[in-house]
Amino acid sequence: MTEQPVYYFDNNATTRIASPVFEAMLPFLKEQWGNPSSAYSFGHDVGRHVDHARTKVAELIRAEPREIIFTSCGTESNNSAIHSALLTQPERRHIVTTTVEHSATLKFCAFLQKQGYEVTFLPVTADGALDLAQLKRSIRSDTALVSVMWANNETGVLFPIQEVAAICRSKGVLCHTDAVQAAGKINIDVKELGVDLLSLSGHKLYAPKGIGLLYVKRHTKYHPYIIGGGQERGRRGGTENVPYIVAFGKAAELALANLAKENTRVRALRDKLETGILERIPGASRNSPVEPRLPNTSNLAFCGVEAEGILMLLDQAGICASSGSACTTGSLDPSHVLTAMGCSASRARASVRFSLGIDNTAAEVDCLLERLPVIIEKLRANAPVDEAAESSIAVSSGSEVP
Amino acid sequence: MTEQPVYYFDNNATTRIASPVFEAMLPFLKEQWGNPSSAYSFGHDVGRHVDHARTKVAELIRAEPREIIFTSCGTESNNSAIHSALLTQPERRHIVTTTVEHSATLKFCAFLQKQGYEVTFLPVTADGALDLAQLKRSIRSDTALVSVMWANNETGVLFPIQEVAAICRSKGVLCHTDAVQAAGKINIDVKELGVDLLSLSGHKLYAPKGIGLLYVKRHTKYHPYIIGGGQERGRRGGTENVPYIVAFGKAAELALANLAKENTRVRALRDKLETGILERIPGASRNSPVEPRLPNTSNLAFCGVEAEGILMLLDQAGICASSGSACTTGSLDPSHVLTAMGCSASRARASVRFSLGIDNTAAEVDCLLERLPVIIEKLRANAPVDEAAESSIAVSSGSEVP
Repeated sequence: MTEQPVYYFDNNATTRIASPVFEAMLPFLKEQWGNPSSAYSFGHDVGRHVDHARTKVAELIRAEPREIIFTSCGTESNNSAIHSALLTQPERRHIVTTTVEHSATLKFCAFLQKQGYEVTFLPVTADGALDLAQLKRSIRSDTALVSVMWANNETGVLFPIQEVAAICRSKGVLCHTDAVQAAGKINIDVKELGVDLLSLSGHKLYAPKGIGLLYVKRHTKYHPYIIGGGQERGRRGGTENVPYIVAFGKAAELALANLAKENTRVRALRDKLETGILERIPGASRNSPVEPRLPNTSNLAFCGVEAEGILMLLDQAGICASSGSACTTGSLDPSHVLTAMGCSASRARASVRFSLGIDNTAAEVDCLLERLPVIIEKLRANAPVDEAAESSIAVSSGSEVP
Repeated sequence: MTEQPVYYFDNNATTRIASPVFEAMLPFLKEQWGNPSSAYSFGHDVGRHVDHARTKVAELIRAEPREIIFTSCGTESNNSAIHSALLTQPERRHIVTTTVEHSATLKFCAFLQKQGYEVTFLPVTADGALDLAQLKRSIRSDTALVSVMWANNETGVLFPIQEVAAICRSKGVLCHTDAVQAAGKINIDVKELGVDLLSLSGHKLYAPKGIGLLYVKRHTKYHPYIIGGGQERGRRGGTENVPYIVAFGKAAELALANLAKENTRVRALRDKLETGILERIPGASRNSPVEPRLPNTSNLAFCGVEAEGILMLLDQAGICASSGSACTTGSLDPSHVLTAMGCSASRARASVRFSLGIDNTAAEVDCLLERLPVIIEKLRANAPVDEAAESSIAVSSGSEVP
C-alpha cells in the first residue's frame, strides 16, 4: 500500500474523496444497495437519496433538479452534449469549438469531422484568450453548437462564457460549456451564464472518479447518448450509480458552502507558490496571464529543463505535480494547450502545472519553495556535468583501463 | 435509513456488494485516490491495482487482460459494441438482433434504424428459443454484427451463443453477446464461445452499480464510444473509476471461485421455490421451459392476478421481487420479452420474476412459499369483494348522505 503523497499539487487531475463525502456514500455501498428503479420500497427509498443528490448538484450551479442528467464522467457529458446538439438538429452539421479544449471535446469533434460534420477549431491568443469577434464570425446558419470550455485544465485560463453564450443566443445557436475545472473553484450560475448545456465531473471536487453530470436547460431538446432503460427520465440508460450520485450531491453541497472562503484561501496559497517560484528560480515564467484565471492553478515554464525530469525529482521528494493533463500522460507530444498559445515545443516541454485544493497548506507551499529551486538547479547543472563527464571519459579511455 | 429487505429475490435487478468486494475497494475510496494516468508513483501505484483487476475479470471469462475495456455499465458496453461494429465496417449497415434483448440493445438498435441503419429483430418461440436456421438466413453480405444476449434477464432463458458465434464465423460476421445476466451464474469461456465482443456488468455479480466491461477479442478492430483521453489504451476516455474497477476484479475472482458450488446451491433453491409455488398456488405456471435456463431465475404467471398487486403485498411482507426488468419499471406496457414469447398481455401482467443469489437461504424460500399463496388468494378474493362493495355503495348512494 502506497503512502499518501506528502504534498499533492495536482488537484486538477483528481482530488481526494472528502471525508463527509465518503461518509455520505458509505450506506449505499453497504446496507442501502437496492436498485432505485425497482418497484418495492427497498428500491424506492434509495431513489429518494438520488433525488436529494440531484437537488444538491442542481443548487451548486443554480439549476433545477430536472435539468440534471447524471453521467459516468465529464468525458461522457461532453460527448453527450455535442451528440445531442447534432441529433436534435439534423439539418445543422457544423460545430464551433476551440483548439485548447479537453480531449473529451477535441477528439470527439475530430471523430465527428471524419463522419462528415464540419468543425471550426478557434485559435487562442498568446494569453490563451478567445477572440469573441472571430467566434461570432465563425457561427454559420448550419452551426448546431458552440462548445467552449470555461476553465482550462492546464493553464486555468477562464473563457468569458457569459459573453460566448450571449453571442450564441443572438445567433440562435446552442451553447455548451465544459465546466469540469470550474466547478468548486468559481461560482456557477447557469441562469446568469445563459448556456444551454454544461458538463461537470465529480472527481474534480472531492467526489469519486466515475460520476459526472450534464446540465440541460429546460425546454432544450435532448437526445440520449447512452441508450437503454428509462433511467434519468429516459435520458441516460444504465442502472444508477447510487453511491457516487449521493457522493456527488454531498460534494456539491460542500463546494457551495465553502466556495467563497476556499476560493480566497487557495488563491492566496497559489499566489504564494507562484510568486515564490518566480522570485527564487531564474528563467521561470508563467504560461498564462495573471487573470482571468482559476484561483488554484499555476502553469510555469522552467527554461532549459525538461518537465519530465522535474516531475521525477519532485516525485522522489513526495511531491505530485504534472505536465499537461493526466488524460494525455504518456503522449510524447508537447501540450496542445501551450502550443496553441504560441509556446515553442521546448517551452511546452519545460512546463509544469501546479493545481491546489482544499487540503493544501502554507507549510506545504513553503516546502515546495524550498525543494523546487534545488531540483531545477540540479537538473540544469546535470546537463553540462554530463557533457564534461563524457569528454573526460573520452580523454581517459585512451590511457588506462579503469 | 431503510432496513434491508428480509427476503431479496431480485438479484437479476441488482445485487448487494459482497463484503470482500467492499473491503477490496475501500482503500481506493480513502488513501489510494491518485489518478492512475498520472506520471508520479502515487498515480502509478494505483494503476497497478487497475491492471490486477483487469487480470481478474479477464480470468472470469478466460480472456486476456488486453481484451478488456472497462466501461461505466452494461448499457454502455452494449452500445459501444454495436457502435464499434458499425464504425469499423462503414460499408456494412445491417444488424441482426432479437426481440427479447435488454433495452440497452433493443433501444440502441431502434435508434440506429432511425439513423438509416437496417436492423433485423429475430422473433423467439413460445419457449423463448431462437430459430438458428432463421438467424443464419437473416445474415446478409452487409451485416455488420449479430448481437444476441446469452441469458434473458426476465426469464433466464439461455441462447445457444456458441452455435450463434459459429454461424457468424462461417458467414464472416462479428458476433456480440450481452452476457450481463450470465456472468457469475454460468461458466464463461470466450475462447470456447467464439464471440468477438461480450458485455458484462459489475452490479449483477456483487460489485457496485456503475462499472461494466466490454470484451473485445484480440485483433478485432475497435472504435471507442466514449471519446476523450488515452485511458484504456485509447479505447474508452474518462478518468478510470479505480474503486469500482478494483471491486469488479474482486467480484470476478469470487464469482470464479464459487461458481460451481453456488450454481448447484442456487439451482436447488430456485427449484424448491418454483416447484413449491406451482404445487401450492392453483393457476400458477412457468413462463419458460425448465431448460436451458439460468440456475437462479424463475418467471411465473399467476392467472387472473395483477403482478403489481402481488409485488405490493410482497413488499409489505419485506419480500422483493419484480415484474420485468427494473430498467423498464414504470412502463405501462406488458413485458416485451413475455409478449415476444406469445404470452397475452394479461398473462404478461400477471407475471412475477424471482431471481436468487448468494445470500438466499432455504428458510427464505420456505417463508416465501408460506406467504405467497396467502397473497395470491387475498388478491383473487379481493376483486369480487370490491365489486360487491361498489354495488352496495351504488345502491346506498340514493338513500342517505353518509
